[in-house]
Amino acid sequence: MRIVIDAEGIFSDNGPKMAHGALRYRPDDVVAVIDSRHSGSTTDAVLTSPLGAAPIVADLQQAMSYRPDTYLVGFSLLRPGITDYLRAQVVKAIAAGLQIVSGLHYQLTDDAEIAAAAAAHGVRIRDLRRPANPPRLAGRIAHRSGSWTTLAVGSDSSVGKMTTMLELDREAVRRGLSSGFVATGQTGIMIAGRGVPADHIVVDFLSGSIEEAVLEAAEDHEFVFVEGQGSLNHPAYSALSLGILHGTCPDAMILCHRANASTLAHYPHQPLPSLAALITIHDQACRWLQPAIEATVVGISLNTSALTEQESRHEVRRIAEETGLPVADVVRSGAGVLLDAVVDSSIRRSSSSTTASV
Amino acid sequence: MRIVIDAEGIFSDNGPKMAHGALRYRPDDVVAVIDSRHSGSTTDAVLTSPLGAAPIVADLQQAMSYRPDTYLVGFSLLRPGITDYLRAQVVKAIAAGLQIVSGLHYQLTDDAEIAAAAAAHGVRIRDLRRPANPPRLAGRIAHRSGSWTTLAVGSDSSVGKMTTMLELDREAVRRGLSSGFVATGQTGIMIAGRGVPADHIVVDFLSGSIEEAVLEAAEDHEFVFVEGQGSLNHPAYSALSLGILHGTCPDAMILCHRANASTLAHYPHQPLPSLAALITIHDQACRWLQPAIEATVVGISLNTSALTEQESRHEVRRIAEETGLPVADVVRSGAGVLLDAVVDSSIRRSSSSTTASV
Repeated sequence: MRIVIDAEGIFSDNGPKMAHGALRYRPDDVVAVIDSRHSGSTTDAVLTSPLGAAPIVADLQQAMSYRPDTYLVGFSLLRPGITDYLRAQVVKAIAAGLQIVSGLHYQLTDDAEIAAAAAAHGVRIRDLRRPANPPRLAGRIAHRSGSWTTLAVGSDSSVGKMTTMLELDREAVRRGLSSGFVATGQTGIMIAGRGVPADHIVVDFLSGSIEEAVLEAAEDHEFVFVEGQGSLNHPAYSALSLGILHGTCPDAMILCHRANASTLAHYPHQPLPSLAALITIHDQACRWLQPAIEATVVGISLNTSALTEQESRHEVRRIAEETGLPVADVVRSGAGVLLDAVVDSSIRRSSSSTTASV
Repeated sequence: MRIVIDAEGIFSDNGPKMAHGALRYRPDDVVAVIDSRHSGSTTDAVLTSPLGAAPIVADLQQAMSYRPDTYLVGFSLLRPGITDYLRAQVVKAIAAGLQIVSGLHYQLTDDAEIAAAAAAHGVRIRDLRRPANPPRLAGRIAHRSGSWTTLAVGSDSSVGKMTTMLELDREAVRRGLSSGFVATGQTGIMIAGRGVPADHIVVDFLSGSIEEAVLEAAEDHEFVFVEGQGSLNHPAYSALSLGILHGTCPDAMILCHRANASTLAHYPHQPLPSLAALITIHDQACRWLQPAIEATVVGISLNTSALTEQESRHEVRRIAEETGLPVADVVRSGAGVLLDAVVDSSIRRSSSSTTASV
């Protein structure tokens, strides 16, 4: 694919997630990024932690000189609907013959004007947040014996759950393990090419959709890494988190946390539980469904992107002492330490169940 | 309204919920029920615990002699989609000039054939499960001080959460208290005329939609009774339950339970936690969001519909001893005991906060 990412006015260290995800995990596919504020520069020059080196252009017309075949909506509007800017851009991109990929709540496929334009120009629209049909209810079906499923959970949204699972999956593959990644958000789906658009599924069918994807991955792989969403302590996203957790029925969890965060990012009046309390919260949620399960948090993925290298090392050490768990910033130092923890947990369980059955 | 309820082939003690709800709470509005198996009989004659005395007819044509103005879909299909029978019935009812009220996942308003028929006959379609626009994210906004919000939670779905809250609301009104009911399911919405179709809301906006409805009810009333859905220990519906719980931020909870149930009704391999464990589970879920909150289960609503009168009295006593909480079957003996518990909890809290501030 030859992707142009539209991130007009918002390309920065803070996002958009879709652009960061594409640049980090599909760098060869990105031919240009639109943000007129940085026109003429490149993505590595604009970001503190460089990602790729794609040219940044002022608009779609400039982007066309890089011969894109796909227009990726970089924006993730919090609410349904579409802005006038995006509607005009999408129509222009269609007229230029580009495929459209969007992670918006708003389904471009269902928009009469956009669908008609796409039909007229023979262009395909892919809504990443479009749930599969038909939906299904969760059945509490056991995973294939011998598979080991790890879920990324978090103290907040946007703390690195997707990145942590992608890095664990890559590290596992690097070690020659059989490993699968289950995407549950639009950026993860864009990267993996498939997945469950968890936050766009009618809630009754959320756990069932996740369960189906996890069962399938556990059939094919020894290790399964599931991207979580939101957090159980979040006023708006706790239902999303619990639905994914109960649909996943994880064997182990990695707790993702932004270093030094003391409140939810968008809810300054909502303090974060301590890491110890967060571990307990996730243990509780697992036990609600399976009282006897031993699944627990086996490692901490610490997002230290706002810290210096030295501060980061200090903070990783401090959190390891505080929790007694392996801790890593997977972007700075890879997921090796956390993968060790996951593999160890699978060995501990299998040897204890062997002992038990003897 | 003059409602004909279509419950063809399924009208019984076990449902459908929509028919039971309408007969119990809007008895004067129901002019006929369709179920050809009981044609010529009446609703009180077919049910063990009589509800209303509406005539049961063989089909829509027979129903027309009772001059209905509204056709209510009695079915609640678990999955999206519509059966051939229902499609044909709805089209026939529209042709007969009846308004259509439906609680299906499938939105009749969005069905081209049905919408065209409704337009041609000047007939209104009301999809009870259609979410309001625009959706909103939960903000963790405090309820009006002085209001007291009680949420029905449960050990399973279909155990009596709606009925418990409606009976509490009615009992409160009977006592001259200012009381409001917040419906969160299609039957409750049909009865109350408004509410939040919780299980049909994109999960990101679930807690926010509930929060909005509860804040509004708490502005207007001293006591607010919120219908819960599903259960936190349910493989498929736990996300729905948690979203409602975190959106409600209840001051007190009533735990609804079917007497003698030991597993989830539709998941015989999924044992129920003990009542003590269920109370703990709900305390935990409240504390995830508000660590300092004192909300807890203040009473048990025991559904003893499958028991004899004597067995029921015995079981109510037994559960009261087991839990140390007030217990009632609200259908058999009203919600007085449980309302006492709710009112007491509000007084305890307000006097302890007065003491604290002195």
